[in-house]
Amino acid sequence: MTIDPERHSSILAAMREEKLDALICSSPTEVLLLTGYWPVMGASIAVFTAEGEVHLMVPEDEQEIASKSSSAALIGFPSGKLDTLTTPRAAIQQPLVSLCTRLSLTGARIGLELEPGMQPSSYAASITYRSGLVDVLRDAFPQIGTVAADAMMARLKAQKTQVELAKIRTAALIASAGFRPIQDTIRPGLREAEIAALLQMNFESASSADKVQRSYGYFFCMSGPNSATAAAAYARTRQRNVQAGDLVMIHANTCGDGYWTDITRTETAGDLTERQMHMRAAIDEARQAALSVIRPGVGAQQVDQAARSVLERHGFGRQFKHGLGHGVGFAAANANAQPRIHPASPDILEAGMTFNVEPAIYFDDYGGMRHCDVVAVTASGVEVLTDF
Amino acid sequence: MTIDPERHSSILAAMREEKLDALICSSPTEVLLLTGYWPVMGASIAVFTAEGEVHLMVPEDEQEIASKSSSAALIGFPSGKLDTLTTPRAAIQQPLVSLCTRLSLTGARIGLELEPGMQPSSYAASITYRSGLVDVLRDAFPQIGTVAADAMMARLKAQKTQVELAKIRTAALIASAGFRPIQDTIRPGLREAEIAALLQMNFESASSADKVQRSYGYFFCMSGPNSATAAAAYARTRQRNVQAGDLVMIHANTCGDGYWTDITRTETAGDLTERQMHMRAAIDEARQAALSVIRPGVGAQQVDQAARSVLERHGFGRQFKHGLGHGVGFAAANANAQPRIHPASPDILEAGMTFNVEPAIYFDDYGGMRHCDVVAVTASGVEVLTDF
Repeated sequence: MTIDPERHSSILAAMREEKLDALICSSPTEVLLLTGYWPVMGASIAVFTAEGEVHLMVPEDEQEIASKSSSAALIGFPSGKLDTLTTPRAAIQQPLVSLCTRLSLTGARIGLELEPGMQPSSYAASITYRSGLVDVLRDAFPQIGTVAADAMMARLKAQKTQVELAKIRTAALIASAGFRPIQDTIRPGLREAEIAALLQMNFESASSADKVQRSYGYFFCMSGPNSATAAAAYARTRQRNVQAGDLVMIHANTCGDGYWTDITRTETAGDLTERQMHMRAAIDEARQAALSVIRPGVGAQQVDQAARSVLERHGFGRQFKHGLGHGVGFAAANANAQPRIHPASPDILEAGMTFNVEPAIYFDDYGGMRHCDVVAVTASGVEVLTDF
Repeated sequence: MTIDPERHSSILAAMREEKLDALICSSPTEVLLLTGYWPVMGASIAVFTAEGEVHLMVPEDEQEIASKSSSAALIGFPSGKLDTLTTPRAAIQQPLVSLCTRLSLTGARIGLELEPGMQPSSYAASITYRSGLVDVLRDAFPQIGTVAADAMMARLKAQKTQVELAKIRTAALIASAGFRPIQDTIRPGLREAEIAALLQMNFESASSADKVQRSYGYFFCMSGPNSATAAAAYARTRQRNVQAGDLVMIHANTCGDGYWTDITRTETAGDLTERQMHMRAAIDEARQAALSVIRPGVGAQQVDQAARSVLERHGFGRQFKHGLGHGVGFAAANANAQPRIHPASPDILEAGMTFNVEPAIYFDDYGGMRHCDVVAVTASGVEVLTDF
């Protein structure tokens, strides 16, 4: 594992601008950004210094996986012992204080995650340090300066390096195994839970997953009126039987080694009705309109507007209830991830940004149709990463 | 939805002991404990006062689910708007400050989650407030007293009410659908990922899931030498082909509406070898020895010792690398959840406690065998909740 030089430089440049002596982060996505390793249980801590040194404190039982994805200097700590009970705080206190002392950070200006934020799930359960990490540092080093690095980290995560883009392409490739059999799977009489489970199985058993160390996926199926509830910030599979004529929405968030996708397709159980054909045509046109304006320098707001004006012209303006997209890659389902493709967004597109494009039409009590792709801004336009 | 009177009383008693005027929690499990609702996206906030009033701030798009599982007074807030960009902090700031003012908590002594801790995953991604929630309160109310309620909450979570026990039984019933076909599914030639995916599909498509609003499950398969790595704090499915004679370990964490199970079974691909038969006999005997000592008043350490001494007598002492169990129900995979069934545990069993019993033998480079059940302490002994 060699370091990603493009990412290493962008972090150092941001730290210089914020006059930070070090960044200390524990949220899995932020550890991934700083070190290349996406922690399993959330207990790992990344320490990135202004000299460009990268240290990674990691539970001993994650050391092998970590060493395969990160070139950071690893410091293992026991995740559990038989002779004594430990707590997450006790486990990291001594090694963290000792590392900071060794790096002469005892009076340094440290960037930390202090603001509320969203994290993709890295396992069935994971550790969050809450305010405990800040407290450990302030207690040990009264002279330390703690600075909220959240805004800086959000900007850094927006623009991917070439290495990171390749990882997101791989995640999209693995995700496609779940979506490939979608038309054959949707049949009247099946419950939403059965359809979601079949697609999930295709995803999980895909041999293409051998391209990563860990892949997880969450597949959801929402049919008929339930598909209209997908306008919410989350998806939910129920036990409803799919009926002929239903709109059937399949939504998935999947990842490979911490790089996430956000994908939705909407099919019908049977031939499209005239109403559904109109919805489909409007969404296709809105998607195309959005894709055609994406390039560096364009306002994210303009991309939303391109799609929104098409849907409005078709009479679906009020049924398009959310922004056109948001940052994806380090995030799974986070409407605040940059760039925010939203009517009120101040964000400007730059090459390397990745986000979703999800034009949608939701009619309460009838159903919803959404088509969601992950795209990357290239030097001159757009690359659709989920073109299946 | 009526309130669980047993839980309501236990919270009030604990608050009186800690002289708290209110508890304000945002971690999904803690919100579940205080209100009966397990938030989807982690943005919800529970406010429980010393007068026994329970308020639940919840994103508008979760209000319907919340109203079906909680009798708390719901206060909805928008999870997103089209005319402006919001952040998780901005979304809750005004409603939280206004609620605390209305409840006369502006100079109160408030219990909060301040320590690092583990949370089960409630969705593909979720919000964590980090130190942001404490900061909002301290900024708005300089006279407020903030107290770490983590230890108190950990004790409260250890002992389940009758209502909560019934929910954990339901979660175990739903989980059984994933484990039922286990012997037919394990065949030489299949990859671990295929086996895990098939079991996961059985779990996800089970119609018994209609007993809850939301169920999630994480199924893992580890075969041959990979099964020895299950001694770690986490499980990991790989692409290895299962071979005849392998130990094949199936591990799952599943939940129904926020109540979790932790279950492991180990099968073999083909007939058991003599070595495997010895391991199986030792594990069965260790499990039985542990079950036979479980009752109120017994030290958790004694339960660990009962199983450990059997494994030691069989020559497997060094291969049993972790504690015998930990609290399960509000937790999925948290070795710090009480009661800790561990050689150094000070915990004493009480009726209503639920935990896992997971005797195991791990031989590096050969394989691991583990049998993990969820059990409840009854008035006079033990109930095995995963007896399938």
